Amino acid sequence: MPDSKKVTLSDVAKVAGVSLSTASKALNGSARISEATRARIEEVARRLDFQPNALAQSFARGRSQTIGILTQNAIGTWSAPILVGAASYLGRHEHATLFYDAAFDAEVLEASIRRLRARRIDGLLVIGDGPHYNLRSVTHSFSVPVTYVFTSTDGPDDATFVPDGVMAGRLAAQHLLEIGRRRVAHLTAADDIAATERLQGLTEGLAAAGLAPVAVHAQRDWSEETGAATATALLRSGVEFDAIFCGNDHVARGAEKVLLAAGLRVPDDVALVGVDNWEGTIVGQGTRHLTTIDPLLSRLGTAAAKDVLSADHVGGRQPQPCVLVIGETTVG
Amino acid sequence: MPDSKKVTLSDVAKVAGVSLSTASKALNGSARISEATRARIEEVARRLDFQPNALAQSFARGRSQTIGILTQNAIGTWSAPILVGAASYLGRHEHATLFYDAAFDAEVLEASIRRLRARRIDGLLVIGDGPHYNLRSVTHSFSVPVTYVFTSTDGPDDATFVPDGVMAGRLAAQHLLEIGRRRVAHLTAADDIAATERLQGLTEGLAAAGLAPVAVHAQRDWSEETGAATATALLRSGVEFDAIFCGNDHVARGAEKVLLAAGLRVPDDVALVGVDNWEGTIVGQGTRHLTTIDPLLSRLGTAAAKDVLSADHVGGRQPQPCVLVIGETTVG
Repeated sequence: MPDSKKVTLSDVAKVAGVSLSTASKALNGSARISEATRARIEEVARRLDFQPNALAQSFARGRSQTIGILTQNAIGTWSAPILVGAASYLGRHEHATLFYDAAFDAEVLEASIRRLRARRIDGLLVIGDGPHYNLRSVTHSFSVPVTYVFTSTDGPDDATFVPDGVMAGRLAAQHLLEIGRRRVAHLTAADDIAATERLQGLTEGLAAAGLAPVAVHAQRDWSEETGAATATALLRSGVEFDAIFCGNDHVARGAEKVLLAAGLRVPDDVALVGVDNWEGTIVGQGTRHLTTIDPLLSRLGTAAAKDVLSADHVGGRQPQPCVLVIGETTVG
Repeated sequence: MPDSKKVTLSDVAKVAGVSLSTASKALNGSARISEATRARIEEVARRLDFQPNALAQSFARGRSQTIGILTQNAIGTWSAPILVGAASYLGRHEHATLFYDAAFDAEVLEASIRRLRARRIDGLLVIGDGPHYNLRSVTHSFSVPVTYVFTSTDGPDDATFVPDGVMAGRLAAQHLLEIGRRRVAHLTAADDIAATERLQGLTEGLAAAGLAPVAVHAQRDWSEETGAATATALLRSGVEFDAIFCGNDHVARGAEKVLLAAGLRVPDDVALVGVDNWEGTIVGQGTRHLTTIDPLLSRLGTAAAKDVLSADHVGGRQPQPCVLVIGETTVG
């Protein structure tokens, strides 16, 4: 049925035998009306399939029913699953999203903030590019709640939703212990908040079994090259190891190539665990190769969206659970 | 600066020495005002950093500045990059998005359509799960433009934005010819709109060089298993080939395993091309392995968003360009 045939509030009032203002009060939840009258008007509205004009309603309430979403870099990054999780949740709760991408550009960021303020949003989600460094807080530019996701900020009270990096490390340690590994090495990126957390979790997880990492090698980035270089350094060091927890999946991929080239078998000689679950982003792929920790980015987006709509929006860091995803590199 | 300190239209009117209604006419583009007055009021608005209340403006214009987005299945599918492309474009053009996910459920779909109608959206984007079969058209449920993306519909006049499958096949053929291959086999899924188009493009591309596919093997789905089974059938058939164009990346992955197990070298003996560019979805991965055709899903979302906002929104199928992405399986 096209919109032009829409039942109006006047139609509802006429059929219910009340004034337009009474019908409006009944359907907008005003207290100044008897419950019996409200019930009768609601019944008529349902029967006529009356669809309230949400735009007029939100204007009357002084709320836009719109949440701004500001990404650091939308295309080709981690932002997509977070955005899907957030936008789905907001849609289910009758909120639209107004989406701006700063594309890592400070001027575009400033312009986006101006435009978001002009739209009278009810809240703002800022989606970062990973919990690796501190983003500048924009909370002070808005009088509505601001929630950050997949980033850290320089505002200590900011509500920031990030994957629990310590849990990621702990899950890896527990899994490796469960499959009987005792000599776990760690290869990772240097000078990075997430890397520090993952190592902390690994250390805690192994400590529970009275163990410690047998070696830790870090290089400046999260690349396959870092994995290859640190794995080579590990092999040359002569330290014995039967498992490697890698800071992310790329590092694991680089490490695996070096191990195989050295004649070692994965997982028979060395079990491998990464972080990120890139394989999981590929639809319909049959075999899972790498055991990894999934940061559940879509769920992270949902949690942040829930926070920004919540009346008891609280500040501070809010680490969110990760899960272990088992592949051929630990259980062959 | 928090919203509470906002400059209002009254402030602008006062400083410019005009009435509130004159200031409103000037800034809302009404014709009933002199150009000199308009210029003066605009200058004051700029100087005071006046941010118009977009919600009030859109209410006054009877437009919600909101585009509905309805996905078939948002999480873990192709929808994310399309959504990012569409939402970025809409945000840049001052439109919010109201996002609903039908999760392949007919009842949820109906409920979402009802809710979208209640929100008085200015247009609707329907994001499908691939141009493999016909989705039921919902165009008749809306009086605003409806644009479909990454799907086909049973409404022949519907505006549907899909990757150009014929172009995908043609690009694969051209690349394989350029690297000197002459005996191209094709492994793909059966009974599928996209598969038919890709084969058509391959056939056209080879025909331009006076050639034809040396063999075509199809099985019921797009999986790695289909790739392995059809590659095995191809090897057993005894047909000579120096390249395989695979219907998608999963099929290519399955085929490659069978080729390597049979002692063939990739690309020296057999060059391989897929479709989808899954490797490209993985951030920061160093080496590119599979040569593939990228359907540019984010750009597809942008094109569809542009269409739904456009005054000359036209109907019919709108195939969008793909690009070749070269990897180790053709240029080793």
